[in-house]
Amino acid sequence: MPPVFLKHPFMSQHAIDACDDNAMVRAMLAFELALAEVQEASGAVPNGVSQKIRSQLESATFNVADIAEGISSGGNVAIPFVKQSRALLADDIKRYWHQGATSQDVIDSALMLLLKPRLAALDKLLLRCRSAATALMDAHIDTPMVGRTLMQQALPITFGVKVAHWAVGLEQARRRLSSVELPVQFGGAVGVHSGWDTLGLEWMDALAERLGLAAPVLPWHTDRYPIHTLGTALDAVAGAADKIALDVSLLTQTEVGEVAEPSAPGMGESSSMPHKRNPVRSALIRSAARQVHGHTSVLLNATAQPHERGLGEWHAEWAPLTESVLLVEGALEQVAVLLEGLEVNHANMQHNLAATGGGIMAEPVARLLTPQLGADKAKAVSAAAAETARQEARPYSDVLADHSDVKGSVDTDALRKACDPALYLGSSAAQVMRAKKWLKAK
Amino acid sequence: MPPVFLKHPFMSQHAIDACDDNAMVRAMLAFELALAEVQEASGAVPNGVSQKIRSQLESATFNVADIAEGISSGGNVAIPFVKQSRALLADDIKRYWHQGATSQDVIDSALMLLLKPRLAALDKLLLRCRSAATALMDAHIDTPMVGRTLMQQALPITFGVKVAHWAVGLEQARRRLSSVELPVQFGGAVGVHSGWDTLGLEWMDALAERLGLAAPVLPWHTDRYPIHTLGTALDAVAGAADKIALDVSLLTQTEVGEVAEPSAPGMGESSSMPHKRNPVRSALIRSAARQVHGHTSVLLNATAQPHERGLGEWHAEWAPLTESVLLVEGALEQVAVLLEGLEVNHANMQHNLAATGGGIMAEPVARLLTPQLGADKAKAVSAAAAETARQEARPYSDVLADHSDVKGSVDTDALRKACDPALYLGSSAAQVMRAKKWLKAK
Amino acid sequence: MPPVFLKHPFMSQHAIDACDDNAMVRAMLAFELALAEVQEASGAVPNGVSQKIRSQLESATFNVADIAEGISSGGNVAIPFVKQSRALLADDIKRYWHQGATSQDVIDSALMLLLKPRLAALDKLLLRCRSAATALMDAHIDTPMVGRTLMQQALPITFGVKVAHWAVGLEQARRRLSSVELPVQFGGAVGVHSGWDTLGLEWMDALAERLGLAAPVLPWHTDRYPIHTLGTALDAVAGAADKIALDVSLLTQTEVGEVAEPSAPGMGESSSMPHKRNPVRSALIRSAARQVHGHTSVLLNATAQPHERGLGEWHAEWAPLTESVLLVEGALEQVAVLLEGLEVNHANMQHNLAATGGGIMAEPVARLLTPQLGADKAKAVSAAAAETARQEARPYSDVLADHSDVKGSVDTDALRKACDPALYLGSSAAQVMRAKKWLKAK
Amino acid sequence: MPPVFLKHPFMSQHAIDACDDNAMVRAMLAFELALAEVQEASGAVPNGVSQKIRSQLESATFNVADIAEGISSGGNVAIPFVKQSRALLADDIKRYWHQGATSQDVIDSALMLLLKPRLAALDKLLLRCRSAATALMDAHIDTPMVGRTLMQQALPITFGVKVAHWAVGLEQARRRLSSVELPVQFGGAVGVHSGWDTLGLEWMDALAERLGLAAPVLPWHTDRYPIHTLGTALDAVAGAADKIALDVSLLTQTEVGEVAEPSAPGMGESSSMPHKRNPVRSALIRSAARQVHGHTSVLLNATAQPHERGLGEWHAEWAPLTESVLLVEGALEQVAVLLEGLEVNHANMQHNLAATGGGIMAEPVARLLTPQLGADKAKAVSAAAAETARQEARPYSDVLADHSDVKGSVDTDALRKACDPALYLGSSAAQVMRAKKWLKAK
Repeated sequence: MPPVFLKHPFMSQHAIDACDDNAMVRAMLAFELALAEVQEASGAVPNGVSQKIRSQLESATFNVADIAEGISSGGNVAIPFVKQSRALLADDIKRYWHQGATSQDVIDSALMLLLKPRLAALDKLLLRCRSAATALMDAHIDTPMVGRTLMQQALPITFGVKVAHWAVGLEQARRRLSSVELPVQFGGAVGVHSGWDTLGLEWMDALAERLGLAAPVLPWHTDRYPIHTLGTALDAVAGAADKIALDVSLLTQTEVGEVAEPSAPGMGESSSMPHKRNPVRSALIRSAARQVHGHTSVLLNATAQPHERGLGEWHAEWAPLTESVLLVEGALEQVAVLLEGLEVNHANMQHNLAATGGGIMAEPVARLLTPQLGADKAKAVSAAAAETARQEARPYSDVLADHSDVKGSVDTDALRKACDPALYLGSSAAQVMRAKKWLKAK
Repeated sequence: MPPVFLKHPFMSQHAIDACDDNAMVRAMLAFELALAEVQEASGAVPNGVSQKIRSQLESATFNVADIAEGISSGGNVAIPFVKQSRALLADDIKRYWHQGATSQDVIDSALMLLLKPRLAALDKLLLRCRSAATALMDAHIDTPMVGRTLMQQALPITFGVKVAHWAVGLEQARRRLSSVELPVQFGGAVGVHSGWDTLGLEWMDALAERLGLAAPVLPWHTDRYPIHTLGTALDAVAGAADKIALDVSLLTQTEVGEVAEPSAPGMGESSSMPHKRNPVRSALIRSAARQVHGHTSVLLNATAQPHERGLGEWHAEWAPLTESVLLVEGALEQVAVLLEGLEVNHANMQHNLAATGGGIMAEPVARLLTPQLGADKAKAVSAAAAETARQEARPYSDVLADHSDVKGSVDTDALRKACDPALYLGSSAAQVMRAKKWLKAK
Repeated sequence: MPPVFLKHPFMSQHAIDACDDNAMVRAMLAFELALAEVQEASGAVPNGVSQKIRSQLESATFNVADIAEGISSGGNVAIPFVKQSRALLADDIKRYWHQGATSQDVIDSALMLLLKPRLAALDKLLLRCRSAATALMDAHIDTPMVGRTLMQQALPITFGVKVAHWAVGLEQARRRLSSVELPVQFGGAVGVHSGWDTLGLEWMDALAERLGLAAPVLPWHTDRYPIHTLGTALDAVAGAADKIALDVSLLTQTEVGEVAEPSAPGMGESSSMPHKRNPVRSALIRSAARQVHGHTSVLLNATAQPHERGLGEWHAEWAPLTESVLLVEGALEQVAVLLEGLEVNHANMQHNLAATGGGIMAEPVARLLTPQLGADKAKAVSAAAAETARQEARPYSDVLADHSDVKGSVDTDALRKACDPALYLGSSAAQVMRAKKWLKAK
Repeated sequence: MPPVFLKHPFMSQHAIDACDDNAMVRAMLAFELALAEVQEASGAVPNGVSQKIRSQLESATFNVADIAEGISSGGNVAIPFVKQSRALLADDIKRYWHQGATSQDVIDSALMLLLKPRLAALDKLLLRCRSAATALMDAHIDTPMVGRTLMQQALPITFGVKVAHWAVGLEQARRRLSSVELPVQFGGAVGVHSGWDTLGLEWMDALAERLGLAAPVLPWHTDRYPIHTLGTALDAVAGAADKIALDVSLLTQTEVGEVAEPSAPGMGESSSMPHKRNPVRSALIRSAARQVHGHTSVLLNATAQPHERGLGEWHAEWAPLTESVLLVEGALEQVAVLLEGLEVNHANMQHNLAATGGGIMAEPVARLLTPQLGADKAKAVSAAAAETARQEARPYSDVLADHSDVKGSVDTDALRKACDPALYLGSSAAQVMRAKKWLKAK
């Protein structure tokens, strides 16, 4: 095994457990059992046979190691699975096993069955994040902080609106993911239900219903649109999670200190550097997202597959797709904890708002001074005063009030207001309200 | 310039012309004009000013070279554009220009305006491909050919059903692309409409309506979901186009010869090798798709952007996104020509169906023989006879009919039928009908 | 676990076993033991302590599950490993454990130790491939086959020269990989050996020597050049392997049939389609290569890491790098078997050389006729005759000899020679000889 | 054209000018002229003919638009170029033009010729960066600053050693790039010099020498190792440049302010926010690097090409490879300016060293206190005192000196020293010296 140490920290442990080889066997089994039942319902299998198959296999113990061993000669797990399971059946019903199906039917369908509960789990995690984000938005709808562009302080915003942007990002990705269909695969050897004529499409639809999967337009052995859609939707979630982790990691910088990851015993601590609290959750999220992008790149490059079955392209999808899910679930578990327990440091937000000596308020101040001084001079005065305020560590409004060009000609109260970041928050609160309404809509 | 020679052959020439620097200037201008109008409508600009701005700028000649020259100091084209255009305005209205907007508002919105007609063009091309594919499906609903898995002959299908799979692939991608929203961008310096309070969101919505773009939930300066969605939807189209080109390139191989790209004077010819007709269109499509995947990979990795504006991440989107559109449009132009003029060679399809001496029919033959011979012997006999037929170049059904285990015990007519690929096409025709119905649905 | 079924078939089982969590523990242990020894040698650890540490830990049983459990709070495996191993030490020597080291020192170095024997294994496999390819080149130095460009028949080559190109591709990648240095990592908390001054660099060099790793110029916590170099060198091997698998999969197509993968019991067989032998090894190689490209893409995008330690970027390297090695080793195992046992079908090569009725020889024929007929007419005649030959299934030289413009004016023997692919092989043999010489050079 | 506005800011303007279509024409011409000369030297072209060709073509005006127009039917620029240039030749020498060559010979060789001066330019830029970095290392060999891991303050380093790490990163990439060979391509239609036997390899070697390119082992039409090697070497340079830009962008954050990009009129300024100076150069570098990674991803995925010429894979290389060069050259121009003019703010470095109230010195303090207090208590005291110092804004050493557990038991001077970051710089200076020695070695 590639060391678990190097991979699992970024994945959901719960999801890892739910997607092991046994789960894959159970998923393949579910597909084959449903197939027998569907075929029996249409008369292609004698009455009672599917029940016999189910009773003979459902509680059987599969030898996973033997199945794994058997993969190499055919290149996929369905072949040894079908062989081993057929061997467990009574002779007279063996022939009804895997009837009309091909390896890709089994594997593609089993993957969809394996991933379906994971997508449900992702949705649940995303809703949990949404709730936590909404609470943060409410709590900080009026909390001023500095907005930063190109990583430079620019103008004030609120922490509430920052979280609103995070929340909208996640929720867009959630809605996209929740609209992704997981189709059953069933086409037989070359995708046209050879030997079964129009029964094939009927079975395909019936299988979809029975297994709780979507019915595709046609079998999709080499039409990998469903994989592309799912893979890129997962990637969008990874991106939205990564954006939050990126902001948190920037805001937790020692010199910024506006938020901290939730503290937990031992979490992010350094034994030798007591002042340090590493944003470990952000690191885990950011690493997971990067790995997802790599997996997605594999899926994009494997979309076009030759003729009626891929030669390596199909095979290349299995691990990247599955691992993307596990990584995204792992990342979201961390995001949920982050959002639910994020420590917000108002004092540091205030402190940083003052870091430029008022420079970030130079724009509204210049606007205020323009009627008296003209646009150019207003700009020059507001900028110079900010520099003075910073150097002398005096309040910006005091420096301005004392300025020869300002003194007497501008109302002091108006000046103080123009210098107050908390009064220059634009649509921050309105955006929070708008986001909340939209978030609740679905 | 990176040599046009090396890039443009894969792009739509029409789209290249429609997306030049002048078009970008016009798009930025459209955004700024609409902004002034929206602001005038809400009272933030005096009556009549927006009309003056429009009349002073709409027919002005912009110095594109100067704008290009001015990009480097600010890192984006909006800065020199706004400067140059402001200089063209009468002094008393200069202050209403670009009011409340930031560079990213201009560029993101202009890009959406630039791409909107391109997406319409893509939709049109995809519908043209759909029509052409439908005609091919109709024409070849009963044309047997060999189905191939892992690039080996497997069992018969029809050419009609192969085209149906192509068509469904393209149409799925078309529907996804057509559902992608192109949102206006408007948030001001840090995305919260600083200084304009709730007017900001109103203007954003009004801008969207006036420009024919979607209204986003919130400004999306660092919520790059719209770019991710658009980029991956384009990538899906590229993938669906590439699948067709891959199949065509395989089917045109000299030894296969089942289809040929539409002939055109000089197209794909080799002066020194008269027998050759290179699948040039397929090569162009496949190359375009690969480049799109690279561009998409850039977009995926730039989804998470810091704070309120990216530092390189945003900038990294511009070329990959725009070029993806031009490449996809170029690829679709080729796909449309391919589908409209594809030369289908029935004779070679028949020839290849016979290439295994009947081996591809061994499965139905074995099924036929099973009642008489038992499953194992039936398989052995059917396989051995195919090998004999291939080596002695005799019809499979004759070899079978003469086989000691078969002679007399199986009806000759049934045998002939079991050996006929044209009678073993499964759901091919039904899939064509189902695809046609689905294709017409939207 | 992401199902082993979906990932391990593409990896080397041998390598998987050699890289499990225990191996990672052993590698981390080796680093820490060497560190203690190096420090003892320089007097920073009392005499005899390193020997005590070794004896207390070398045969200790580590609780791998506990270590795995402990990763999440610090985000890397070194933290719980150091903690668990320190707990195993006698109290009086605990303080000398992990002295002056940081987690990244342990993990980066341990990864290099883990991968070093794998790179040796890759080199061995590549040399095995080189030998097998050389044997194929010798055996087929004069075996004519058709050369194909854009997947169309073009002109004759030999199978020997095709293999020579494969072999050169692999050997170039081998030489690049063998020149990649695996450096030890040792820099302490922020990469400057805090508290140990110039001793740090001495220890770094001594560690490299003791562990059989390279000594870097400086600690490389956020200079990821070594990872970039290794990752891309592995990717080059994957690409060279993939080229071979691509050619084999094209040559094994039913209609081409010029080579077949080595037969083995059950390998690539289809129970329902007896005529089929799937190129399973090629599929496994091609899938592995695609996954490696995705992993490499992660590494490229993580090259730039912030300040003195990455925040997610570093963490994102672990799995992609390790798995790339396992995938490349898996692919090479398959390539070696392919090259050692490839079945070459001369008859089909001959058959395909004739498939265009002589068209592939139209170029030399036109050259021969030019003195008599002029260039244009010569081309026209040679092309028309090829078409006639193909349609009437007659030898090209006969058709030409009977042609009114040729009859009597061109020597029949010269004509026959010009039509013989085996006499138009250009530098094929010379290239084989040149490649062999170059291959043997290192 | 994809808007130049969106792409060129990231590229070197000088390089763009040097790589236009005319340059590509000149490069193709250079290849063909050299070929005629080489063939004349070996007797395959009559004496004097190559000189005639040269005189007829060297000063001819090519119609670039016509060539561009002619690409689509054959899919590459060599076909219309060869046609147009042949038309310019006197009839009696037309036949010696492009003799024995194929399109890929022309294009691959021309690309290498086009890129060769660019690689020289990259090397020059990298040496310029090296000099600038060395000067910075010298100037700041003793400038303490805080080292940061996971973006948290950790322990002191010097600015000199940080630059040393940057310089080593760039220089490693330079050495790798300078070792990349640019081979001539010459193999004829199927890579075996059809019709010219062993002359072909002789001509290939002679061409390499005449054109100043490397002689490959064999023609490399579908052995894309040279492209993989070049593309990934460029990517390594991009990564090393990106690392510097990432650090600069983090260090220029308003709250950190330890460095600033070189000021230049208008550079990075914001008209509305006078306090702002955007790290525009860093943004341009970071954007360029991201785009290079996408291009490299295309090259990786196109390494395996079918048979004797790619079908789309080869074509997909042209733009990504060329643009990677232009982007890397653009990025390095910015890096050179950055390193040559970086503004270093000692005061802010000092200020940030004090930001944790001494917390970053808790490790050496704890070490000092351990003999008196035992390890655990020493840690607790040193951490608590740092917190007190930070809250009360008092010097760390004063707080410690007053601590009841410390007072009297530890030498005050030793305490002050342990609290001084400038005395805890580890191997910083030694690393600078080591790096300088290594940098000078080649």
